[in-house]
Amino acid sequence: MRIGVLTAGGDCPGLNAVIRSVVHRAVTHYGDEVIGFEDGYAGLLEGRYRTLDLNAVSGILARGGTILGSSRLERARFRAACDNAKELIEKSGFDALIPIGGEGTLTAARMLSEAGVPVVGVPKTIDNDISATDRTFGFDTAVGVATEAMDRLKTTAESHQRVMVVEVMGRHAGWIALESGMAAGAHGICLPERPFDPADLVKMVEERFARGKKFAVICVAEGAHPAEGTMDYGKGEIDQFGHERFQGIGTALAYELERRLGKEARPVILGHVQRGGTPTAYDRVLATRFGWQAVEAVHRGDFGRMTSLRGTHVDMVPLAEAITKLKTVPEDRMREAESVF
Amino acid sequence: MRIGVLTAGGDCPGLNAVIRSVVHRAVTHYGDEVIGFEDGYAGLLEGRYRTLDLNAVSGILARGGTILGSSRLERARFRAACDNAKELIEKSGFDALIPIGGEGTLTAARMLSEAGVPVVGVPKTIDNDISATDRTFGFDTAVGVATEAMDRLKTTAESHQRVMVVEVMGRHAGWIALESGMAAGAHGICLPERPFDPADLVKMVEERFARGKKFAVICVAEGAHPAEGTMDYGKGEIDQFGHERFQGIGTALAYELERRLGKEARPVILGHVQRGGTPTAYDRVLATRFGWQAVEAVHRGDFGRMTSLRGTHVDMVPLAEAITKLKTVPEDRMREAESVF
Amino acid sequence: MRIGVLTAGGDCPGLNAVIRSVVHRAVTHYGDEVIGFEDGYAGLLEGRYRTLDLNAVSGILARGGTILGSSRLERARFRAACDNAKELIEKSGFDALIPIGGEGTLTAARMLSEAGVPVVGVPKTIDNDISATDRTFGFDTAVGVATEAMDRLKTTAESHQRVMVVEVMGRHAGWIALESGMAAGAHGICLPERPFDPADLVKMVEERFARGKKFAVICVAEGAHPAEGTMDYGKGEIDQFGHERFQGIGTALAYELERRLGKEARPVILGHVQRGGTPTAYDRVLATRFGWQAVEAVHRGDFGRMTSLRGTHVDMVPLAEAITKLKTVPEDRMREAESVF
Amino acid sequence: MRIGVLTAGGDCPGLNAVIRSVVHRAVTHYGDEVIGFEDGYAGLLEGRYRTLDLNAVSGILARGGTILGSSRLERARFRAACDNAKELIEKSGFDALIPIGGEGTLTAARMLSEAGVPVVGVPKTIDNDISATDRTFGFDTAVGVATEAMDRLKTTAESHQRVMVVEVMGRHAGWIALESGMAAGAHGICLPERPFDPADLVKMVEERFARGKKFAVICVAEGAHPAEGTMDYGKGEIDQFGHERFQGIGTALAYELERRLGKEARPVILGHVQRGGTPTAYDRVLATRFGWQAVEAVHRGDFGRMTSLRGTHVDMVPLAEAITKLKTVPEDRMREAESVF
Repeated sequence: MRIGVLTAGGDCPGLNAVIRSVVHRAVTHYGDEVIGFEDGYAGLLEGRYRTLDLNAVSGILARGGTILGSSRLERARFRAACDNAKELIEKSGFDALIPIGGEGTLTAARMLSEAGVPVVGVPKTIDNDISATDRTFGFDTAVGVATEAMDRLKTTAESHQRVMVVEVMGRHAGWIALESGMAAGAHGICLPERPFDPADLVKMVEERFARGKKFAVICVAEGAHPAEGTMDYGKGEIDQFGHERFQGIGTALAYELERRLGKEARPVILGHVQRGGTPTAYDRVLATRFGWQAVEAVHRGDFGRMTSLRGTHVDMVPLAEAITKLKTVPEDRMREAESVF
Repeated sequence: MRIGVLTAGGDCPGLNAVIRSVVHRAVTHYGDEVIGFEDGYAGLLEGRYRTLDLNAVSGILARGGTILGSSRLERARFRAACDNAKELIEKSGFDALIPIGGEGTLTAARMLSEAGVPVVGVPKTIDNDISATDRTFGFDTAVGVATEAMDRLKTTAESHQRVMVVEVMGRHAGWIALESGMAAGAHGICLPERPFDPADLVKMVEERFARGKKFAVICVAEGAHPAEGTMDYGKGEIDQFGHERFQGIGTALAYELERRLGKEARPVILGHVQRGGTPTAYDRVLATRFGWQAVEAVHRGDFGRMTSLRGTHVDMVPLAEAITKLKTVPEDRMREAESVF
Repeated sequence: MRIGVLTAGGDCPGLNAVIRSVVHRAVTHYGDEVIGFEDGYAGLLEGRYRTLDLNAVSGILARGGTILGSSRLERARFRAACDNAKELIEKSGFDALIPIGGEGTLTAARMLSEAGVPVVGVPKTIDNDISATDRTFGFDTAVGVATEAMDRLKTTAESHQRVMVVEVMGRHAGWIALESGMAAGAHGICLPERPFDPADLVKMVEERFARGKKFAVICVAEGAHPAEGTMDYGKGEIDQFGHERFQGIGTALAYELERRLGKEARPVILGHVQRGGTPTAYDRVLATRFGWQAVEAVHRGDFGRMTSLRGTHVDMVPLAEAITKLKTVPEDRMREAESVF
Repeated sequence: MRIGVLTAGGDCPGLNAVIRSVVHRAVTHYGDEVIGFEDGYAGLLEGRYRTLDLNAVSGILARGGTILGSSRLERARFRAACDNAKELIEKSGFDALIPIGGEGTLTAARMLSEAGVPVVGVPKTIDNDISATDRTFGFDTAVGVATEAMDRLKTTAESHQRVMVVEVMGRHAGWIALESGMAAGAHGICLPERPFDPADLVKMVEERFARGKKFAVICVAEGAHPAEGTMDYGKGEIDQFGHERFQGIGTALAYELERRLGKEARPVILGHVQRGGTPTAYDRVLATRFGWQAVEAVHRGDFGRMTSLRGTHVDMVPLAEAITKLKTVPEDRMREAESVF
């Protein structure tokens, strides 16, 4: 068989591990040819690809990024291509396509599938917010990076009697904030799932100071937001070039706490550091297993589905299931986290 | 309530995170008193304990080891104590006991439970070989340490055209070897579950050299062993003090390969480094959740059971279930790993 | 003897290692008593201190922060105290004082010394900008943290064809930017010592893209600034609370490059993560040697001086020498760095 | 000019950083051609080399090992080649040669130099035992790896009341043991420079246990040895294949201590993990500076010398100076280390 593979969407540690695993399984075990489309769906639409043999994937397991490149999907152009899926397949001559990506990528994968392209998806998001799988690769690495940063910040906060507000990734779901906050022993966690009241944080900090613990670390997901009426937030500012710039929640909250507490509060925005670099062992294993399973699915003809971790097993679930509902942090997980603040 | 907690058996990153979580949940939420028995069951039998308040567990989340100490169980003495469990409870005056430990500890916990002591167990093993839970804390850290070591060894092996045999922990189950081997891209993995033939490894190395890949890393669980008749192994040697010393499988295999291949092969025995030090974020979260759940179970009166990860949920399972069957690496996981050699 | 020790100024990995070393050498070898003043000079002025024995410094070697706390110096109050140094000494009854800190701390130390207090200083700055010593502890850790962050960002930048502007610490001297930029293979480095022209960066990025290297990482010291007339920078903006907020150079430069290049450019501000957490081995060794030497100096009566690394030796230099001139990055070091862009 | 470069001897983190730096400086600044000989001097003798342009060294800065490979020097063959140095140069047509390596490599470099080959050496040893330079790259990484391992082992030793004997690299000089032992807070350090008496270690451990510190970590250089008459050591044992195998000092000492103390003592042999993998920021910077300086020396015609770190400067010293005397740990450094046991 001739199997196409592509990576789309934002960076995520483990992408190369999936590619490598797909190539190893397909080439060594099945004698397939694997072609890699460049820059995500753009390479598919434009017929830009290269053959991936064992040498092409040598040494990439532990490397961040993606050797295939990625790019944003241009929806209109993509839809047009779907309308003529047959031609799309003929252009590159593949028998199955394995797109690796997040919600947008998988939605596109579903469209391709419905247009008749034999597709097996591999879910990817550092945010861990795809409901059809227990975990996604990249998440563990992101949590690890955020935890290590907070481990460092805690000693500084403690020695210098400061409040640190650490903004981590998570626009719609707060998994990274939840788990890195728990792992680092943060004293407050703010998630997109539950609007927060800065007054609660003020109270927590004041109680800590009263107990002699003269510092606090608060972990905030970038998509967290204050409950209505509790804090002025979200109005843009005009920068020096006349552009409207919005202050992130981490910065806004640090300023708000400093104002209310009369104590130093500093924002730290971790940003893209969470997305890059060498994946943890956990993510490398999960990514490798997803790649293996995707090739198996191709050879079983199990199309229109994606790989999924369920407990200790890697199974297949319908693409439709993956993209209909965001997996958000449930209340009981939040209660667990609160118990160790 | 007055809740006793103890840690027993070998070291495992995350023990302190469980203790901290138990204390936070019990003290802050339920107003319990928590007492920590020193040096495992020894402290229970001898009435050696101290009260654990929030201050006592401050700053221990990320620390390896256990603030309570540990020790080996003296079975005869323990059995005698079980026969008079009532007295045992009265000595320290606790309402529930949370022992944190591996197979031996949980077997003892079951004996206590059957003797009438209200027990909630928390499983602990870096080997991940307890069948009643998807994962145990400590395992992720051990895999991470082993993976990082192999990442380092690979560059050396490659530059200097060498075969490296890396022995990792895992006496009865090969989970650490499997996952760290996969994560590091080892070219061979030997597990206790499946006797290996050194001839297969020789063949693999020779094929690699023929392809121009003039190095190989082989990951061996300490409990792996050669198939009968394939290699001389397991006879002790007499050391300078007249003691019989057994060569570990890593060392023996490296020598065997060097002899057969006529190429340099070096053993690296990772040893206790895998058991100590700061836990990964994954292990801190899992350990914290187990501690939380254990306290909940105590307050539900859910005794004779232990905490368990099932998919994304932490549940309770009977202690009996936990200790009857070792969780070994199944054949399909081994096949996945082989596909990326 | 009775030796006082204090830590002042911003956080710096290695502070605890100095304290531990002072206590070990003084107590074990000389039988001294060591007292630790709390919260920097504030504890000295207010007579707040505690005795530090071997137990008090057990386990702190690898910990970030300072067990003694720190605080900002109130200059007026400090000057008044200096005027009556005799009383100051009598209040706590010490025979020598070892202040550990940066330029401000050492300037204060010199004032104390001139007022008759027997002082031995230990220099501390993550910025490495004290001219009287080859290196200061904390710097290696800061460089390591910044390098690791850029290692991660590079893979993301490369896969997603982006320009990353990473702002690191260094208000007056660019050592952290220089060394972390070199270590991470940054494609541009901006230092306070040399105003930069954004046009040069634009040219570098465009040349890279032309060569098919469709990404770039630029490392900017927080104190770097554009050459006059090259870029609009440094005007404050009014935030939502009516405060004037200044955009950091990292953010401003990323926006400027995005505007000029018409390509995505993202700022990452590493911030306080560089100041905290466990010190590198290098910093632990240097800090330990400084502590040892400080105690030796006390017993030699070698006051009014501070510890200093010169090549492989730790010597003493006059406090005056330490604080008169900032150690900035010389041109030839910058040329070395440029050669590998 | 046409500049040859080669790497020889054991692995050392930073080799690739030197190669990259040489290529960048020579190609970009001087418009030179750089050729890389494969597998050390073997490639030179056999005329096996390839051109190294900017692309060839892209992405190798942070990678362990050496892209050029390495091999052991065959002395007789090398000497013969030196006798006809002119021919050797003509074969590959280079104007200058930059060999990167340890004592053996630099001795060979000197022979080449005396035979008329224009040579600029770059010293390399993780052992840091070359007297003509303050530090060598690779050493900081090795110390970091050993320190991190001991950080982990300490928590295990403490929780389980054990003595750990950690064997680190250093056959003739104890720098790695000295600095990693200090950095990790080891309770005993054994160096090749000073024969030790196991009775001293027994006493130290017993005093610790008496003080309630029921564990100890002892850091031993592989080249350390007991003082005469203090311990049976160094006799080989006959292994299963009839070969004589010598027990390393780490293993021998652990057994000896266990026997004398009647307490568990375990050896951990770190081995090749110290030699491989990504270099620390410190080593990347030093390696890059050495590469830069080597190219400068070539263009100044400054042959027969090698790069050297002196304080904060990189200078050139005669090759002869580099190889005449081993840089061993002086007594005063050992005394510093002992003060914090």
